[in-house]
Amino acid sequence: MSVTTRATTRVAAYAAPAPGVPLERTTVPRRPVGPHDVLIDIKYAGICHSDIHQVRDGWGEGIYPMVPGHEIAGVVAEVGAEVTRFAVGDRVGVGCMVDSCRVCEHCRSGQEQHCVQGMTGTYNAVGRDGEPTYGGYSTHLVVDENYTVRIPEGLALDVAAPLLCAGITLYSPLRHWKAGPGKKVAVVGLGGLGHMGVKMAHALGAEVTVLSQTLRKEADGRRLGATHFHATGDESTFEKLAGTFDLILSTVSAPLALDAYLGLLKVDGALVNVGAPEEPVSLNLFSVIGGRKTLAGSMIGGIAETQEMLDFCAEHGLGSEIELIDADHINEAYARVLSSDVRYRFVIDTSTI
Amino acid sequence: MSVTTRATTRVAAYAAPAPGVPLERTTVPRRPVGPHDVLIDIKYAGICHSDIHQVRDGWGEGIYPMVPGHEIAGVVAEVGAEVTRFAVGDRVGVGCMVDSCRVCEHCRSGQEQHCVQGMTGTYNAVGRDGEPTYGGYSTHLVVDENYTVRIPEGLALDVAAPLLCAGITLYSPLRHWKAGPGKKVAVVGLGGLGHMGVKMAHALGAEVTVLSQTLRKEADGRRLGATHFHATGDESTFEKLAGTFDLILSTVSAPLALDAYLGLLKVDGALVNVGAPEEPVSLNLFSVIGGRKTLAGSMIGGIAETQEMLDFCAEHGLGSEIELIDADHINEAYARVLSSDVRYRFVIDTSTI
Repeated sequence: MSVTTRATTRVAAYAAPAPGVPLERTTVPRRPVGPHDVLIDIKYAGICHSDIHQVRDGWGEGIYPMVPGHEIAGVVAEVGAEVTRFAVGDRVGVGCMVDSCRVCEHCRSGQEQHCVQGMTGTYNAVGRDGEPTYGGYSTHLVVDENYTVRIPEGLALDVAAPLLCAGITLYSPLRHWKAGPGKKVAVVGLGGLGHMGVKMAHALGAEVTVLSQTLRKEADGRRLGATHFHATGDESTFEKLAGTFDLILSTVSAPLALDAYLGLLKVDGALVNVGAPEEPVSLNLFSVIGGRKTLAGSMIGGIAETQEMLDFCAEHGLGSEIELIDADHINEAYARVLSSDVRYRFVIDTSTI
Repeated sequence: MSVTTRATTRVAAYAAPAPGVPLERTTVPRRPVGPHDVLIDIKYAGICHSDIHQVRDGWGEGIYPMVPGHEIAGVVAEVGAEVTRFAVGDRVGVGCMVDSCRVCEHCRSGQEQHCVQGMTGTYNAVGRDGEPTYGGYSTHLVVDENYTVRIPEGLALDVAAPLLCAGITLYSPLRHWKAGPGKKVAVVGLGGLGHMGVKMAHALGAEVTVLSQTLRKEADGRRLGATHFHATGDESTFEKLAGTFDLILSTVSAPLALDAYLGLLKVDGALVNVGAPEEPVSLNLFSVIGGRKTLAGSMIGGIAETQEMLDFCAEHGLGSEIELIDADHINEAYARVLSSDVRYRFVIDTSTI
């Protein structure tokens, strides 16, 4: 597929034509490469659980056809006239956002994900130019250089792709809540998010525990960096580990027994949710009052922090554990994600689109 | 009533003989003054909402007869041989605890309220000597000097008494979550706890908003230090104030619409509960994920921080707003507390016991 800088061009992509309909090959428009834009030759795109939510219109107001994909790794194929940060041939990534207002306090402080006007999602959003955005299950993407990050040498593009969402989603709260030497960190759920949390918390120097429904993935958990592995399906786990952790990161989207997990925290500990169920959960406020505990949430991270995370992962040799698939297996992969049958992230080889 | 140092002595007190039974005058034992003890001639005792919970056995396992009272102000009448911090005639206070293990990490770091073995409550508890503890609705108290704080000159004993629970309960989270100049702080509920929160947050330099069910107490709220006052019974309050506050302190024990209140926080803001309903509340975890928000709790404070709070209150001329009563009005006062008919704290003149 040839892409030019001067006009809107149609590029190959996999899209859901309507809610709940399987994804199929199609073409979608990409804008001309503006002065601050880079054209990315996409090499790999990770499949995030939220892609599946969104193509099924789980959050409502979905925009169709929808091209999912916000875990994008590729190579710069062209740069706009005023681009300063990237050159043709650079290895780059794009995560969950492609724009924000750039002037609010959060944009200015590098927390573009909390933009007061709302960040522009990489897909299933309307850009500031009024056009819908299309994600990374595609061959090419045009994006502002300020929402593009560099993938350091030494980090293969395929295992780097999932870092753009799964990686930063765990890295940001690990840093914010100061995971490091002397800290006991638990990761709830060993999936696409959780397995990166284990790797990064371990690399940060924390003592890592995996809390998983069963012990089925114990060997994996230990290989990834966990010192301890406990089954949450076993009631005694919550007695044995009471008051143990400085930080618990929950990556699960099933309703969590919050009071039970808060009981696992030390005084001043924090339970941080990066996954969440759609429906409300029950909480006894005494679970946070007694030990001045925190129940919090976190959502991806800013652009600068995403770059920091990629540099950290390169330094420590941390990529995602992936299963590489061709584009014509996307729908099958979705079904397997929903049945938790993936270790630990599907990544689409976009040359097969 | 005469009290000696050498033997257990019975002193006058008001006690609930059994759950749900009105309080009546009786006598209870006080231990001999040990080497590290002070004998306090109690002058005033505040009535805390939790006194009412406990005499009704609302938390279960109540010990009867129960002498409530953990907002105690008085004068040292006698000191043990090895007491170094207090002398006869000193103006002192005792709050919610009279002992703790003294060796755990929390006791050593001045967070005795989080003692790993559990703090010994001022009443409705069993002391480390195996004897039940009796609270401040009484004429005298024998307590270890290490669990006694100094009430500075310039702070009248009657308005100081409620600071020992209501004051520290608000002061500790205000300090922990850094209320001060440039910060917008909301206090939910303008009662015994809330009115101290308003005074102290204002004195700390924060911009204070009261969120109360109605505007009935608006004049009071502004007089106490609030710049803004909004009715939570008015749905539009939650739209108007969306994203406003750095810190919200909830003092109410009614079930709180957590998602609505979390919506009032800025990015990285905290909703801290110092009151709580017995029953679980509902929470949508997306309410904390979007803006990296914190839902937390806090429970009184340590002994050193309680002293710091009293010093702060004396420096800023902050006492509780009180209604002074004779002991024979305790049961009537309980009924009025339950109907929120008190501005803002009943304090018992213990000379009437």
